Amino acid sequence: MIKTIYFDGNAVMLLDQSRLPENVIYLKCSSAIQVAEAIKKLKVRGAPLIGVAAAYGLAMAVNNYNGPARALDEHFQATKQLLASTRPTAVNLFWALARMDKAYQACRHEDPDRIAQILVLESEKMFQEDININKAIGEYGQEIVEQGAQVLTICNAGTLATCGYGTALGVIRSAAARGKLERAWACETRPVLQGARLTVWELLQDHIPVSLITDSMAGYTMKLGYIDLVIVGADRVAANGDVANKIGTYSLAVLAHYNNIPFYVAAPLSTVDLSIASGQSIPIEQRHPDEVRQVAGNYLTVPEVEVFNPAFDVTPHHLISGIITEKGIIRPSYFDGLKEAKMPDKG
Amino acid sequence: MIKTIYFDGNAVMLLDQSRLPENVIYLKCSSAIQVAEAIKKLKVRGAPLIGVAAAYGLAMAVNNYNGPARALDEHFQATKQLLASTRPTAVNLFWALARMDKAYQACRHEDPDRIAQILVLESEKMFQEDININKAIGEYGQEIVEQGAQVLTICNAGTLATCGYGTALGVIRSAAARGKLERAWACETRPVLQGARLTVWELLQDHIPVSLITDSMAGYTMKLGYIDLVIVGADRVAANGDVANKIGTYSLAVLAHYNNIPFYVAAPLSTVDLSIASGQSIPIEQRHPDEVRQVAGNYLTVPEVEVFNPAFDVTPHHLISGIITEKGIIRPSYFDGLKEAKMPDKG
Repeated sequence: MIKTIYFDGNAVMLLDQSRLPENVIYLKCSSAIQVAEAIKKLKVRGAPLIGVAAAYGLAMAVNNYNGPARALDEHFQATKQLLASTRPTAVNLFWALARMDKAYQACRHEDPDRIAQILVLESEKMFQEDININKAIGEYGQEIVEQGAQVLTICNAGTLATCGYGTALGVIRSAAARGKLERAWACETRPVLQGARLTVWELLQDHIPVSLITDSMAGYTMKLGYIDLVIVGADRVAANGDVANKIGTYSLAVLAHYNNIPFYVAAPLSTVDLSIASGQSIPIEQRHPDEVRQVAGNYLTVPEVEVFNPAFDVTPHHLISGIITEKGIIRPSYFDGLKEAKMPDKG
Repeated sequence: MIKTIYFDGNAVMLLDQSRLPENVIYLKCSSAIQVAEAIKKLKVRGAPLIGVAAAYGLAMAVNNYNGPARALDEHFQATKQLLASTRPTAVNLFWALARMDKAYQACRHEDPDRIAQILVLESEKMFQEDININKAIGEYGQEIVEQGAQVLTICNAGTLATCGYGTALGVIRSAAARGKLERAWACETRPVLQGARLTVWELLQDHIPVSLITDSMAGYTMKLGYIDLVIVGADRVAANGDVANKIGTYSLAVLAHYNNIPFYVAAPLSTVDLSIASGQSIPIEQRHPDEVRQVAGNYLTVPEVEVFNPAFDVTPHHLISGIITEKGIIRPSYFDGLKEAKMPDKG
C-alpha cells in the first residue's frame, strides 16, 4: 500500500497527487505554508487525508519552531488558522485541527520540545487510526456487495484520499478480497479527473478490474444494467444524512434512484458534522474557472467563457440507501443513527 | 453565419471542427474517401450536417468521375456504400444518401455531366432546405422558452452540426433574438468536448450569453434552480419517440424529470426513423477507447485501462416533453404525431 503522507522528522512528505499517474513523486513540505499550498492546489486531497495532512503540518510547525517560548501559543493558533483556511467543504480538516488543538491545550505548559513530540505523536496516531477505520468501513461495507457485483464510484475515495485502504475503495477492496467483485467502474470525474488519474491507477496497482467512463456515461451504463451498486465517499455529512461530496455525486444518486440501484456513502465518522442540520448549510467550495476551461494547462474552449465550477454538490439523504462507517452501516432515517454513532465509545 | 460546408466545383470544403475553437480552417476533400475519413474522424459532425456532407461527397464523386460511362453506376453505388459505412447512429446520413440515390435513379440514363450537375444541385438544395428547416424549428421552438429563461444543452446542435442556424441552438437563437433568453448553459460533453469547443464558440460569436459546465455539474445546476428548460438535438428518433443523441443526454433527461424541468428534443424530420419501432433497435456507435483516455492526444489515465465508450445513448420517450420539428412541436404520445409529420406535404 503506497504511503500518501509521512513526517520525516523535519518535513511533511506528501505524495504529489497532481503528478499521478505518470509520476510517483513526494513533495517535501518544510513549512505549514507549503502544506497549506499543497492542500489548496490539490497536490494532497481527499477529505480524510487533508485532515491528517493539516495535523502533520501543525505538528511540524511546532516541531520546527525556534522563536521565543512565550510566542509559541500565537504561532500555533496562527498556523492552525492558516491550515483551516485552505478548503471549506470537507469537515475532516476542521475536525483534525480541533483534535490537535485539544492535544495542544492539554500540554501547552510543558516545554516546546515536549509539546512538539506530543503533537507529532498525535498526528501519527490519527494516521494509524484512519487506516484502521477504513479497514472497518471495508469490512462492514463488503456485506452489501453481492457475488459478481459491478460497483460504480466517482472521484477517488481510496488509499489516495486517506492514510490507506480508502473508504469507498476500501469497500471495493474488501469485496474484491472475498472474490465477490466482478468489476469496478470509475467515473473520470471532471474537472480534476481524480477518477481517471487516481482511482484507475490505484485499483490497477491492486489488480482489481476497473472500467473507465466519462461522467456523462454513468446514467446510460446504469440503464444498460452494468451497475449493481454505487458507492461514493463524502466530504461532509449533515445531521440529517445529507452528503456533500465531489460534484457529480448528486447526479449519480438521482440516476441510481431512477434505475433502482442501491446508492451508498462510505465515510469515517469524522466526516459527520452534527452541527450542520442539513446539506443546505454545508459551504460548497467554488474553484477557479480554468479547471473547467482547461485540461493539463491547455484550453479546451474559448478562454473567456463564463464558468460555474462548484467542487462539490449535496445529495439529499432520501436518495442514500445507507452510510457505511467504522461502526457499521447507518440506515435511514439518519438523524438518530448518526447521533448515536458519533457518541464517544464507553470504555 | 459561418459556412460549415460548400462545394467549390471540384472539392468539398469542410470547416474542420476538430480544430475549433483555436483554428478556423477548411479541409479540402477532393475524393469521397476523404469525405468519409472526415466524417469518421469527426472533422465534420452533427446528424444533419453529416447527411449533407455525404450528399456532397457523392455528388463530387460523380462530378469528378472520368472512367467509362458504363461503369458510373457501379462507382456511384460503391461510393454510396463507403459513405454509408462511416457512422452508424445518425439516420440523416442514410436518409441523405437515399435521397441522392433517388435523384440519381431518375437521371441515370442521361450523360455523366448532366447526372453530375443534377446531383450537385440536389446537394445544394438539401443544404438550403436544412437552413430553412432549422429556422422553422427555431421559430416553433422559441414558443416554449419563457421570458428570462436559462436553457441547458449538451453537445453541439448548432450551426456547426447543420448547414446553418442549428436545431437546439436554433431554438436558443430564436429565443435570444426575441430577447427572451437569459442565458444558455453548455455541458462540455466529454469525451469529444463538442459543448466546450463548439457550442461555446458558436454562441459567443453571436453574443449569446453562455456558461460552461462539466457534464457532472448538470444535475446540481438544475437542483440549484438555474435551469428552466433543457433542449438537445438528436441523431435518430424512433417511431415511438425514443431518442438517440450524444452520450449524456439520457442522464440530463432523468435529472430534468427529477427536478421537474421540461426536456425537449429539436430535430428535423429527416432524423425521425419510422422503420425503427423503439430506441432499443437503434445501433449505438462505440468509439475508440483513447477518446476517453486522452484529451488533445495526452493520456489522462493509465493508458491500458479498460474503457466503455458509447458515443450515444437512448432517452426513452416518456422522459421527453416534446419533439420540436420543422412542422411544429410533436407532443406525447409520439407514435401518431411522428407518423403524420413524416407524411409528404400535399401540394
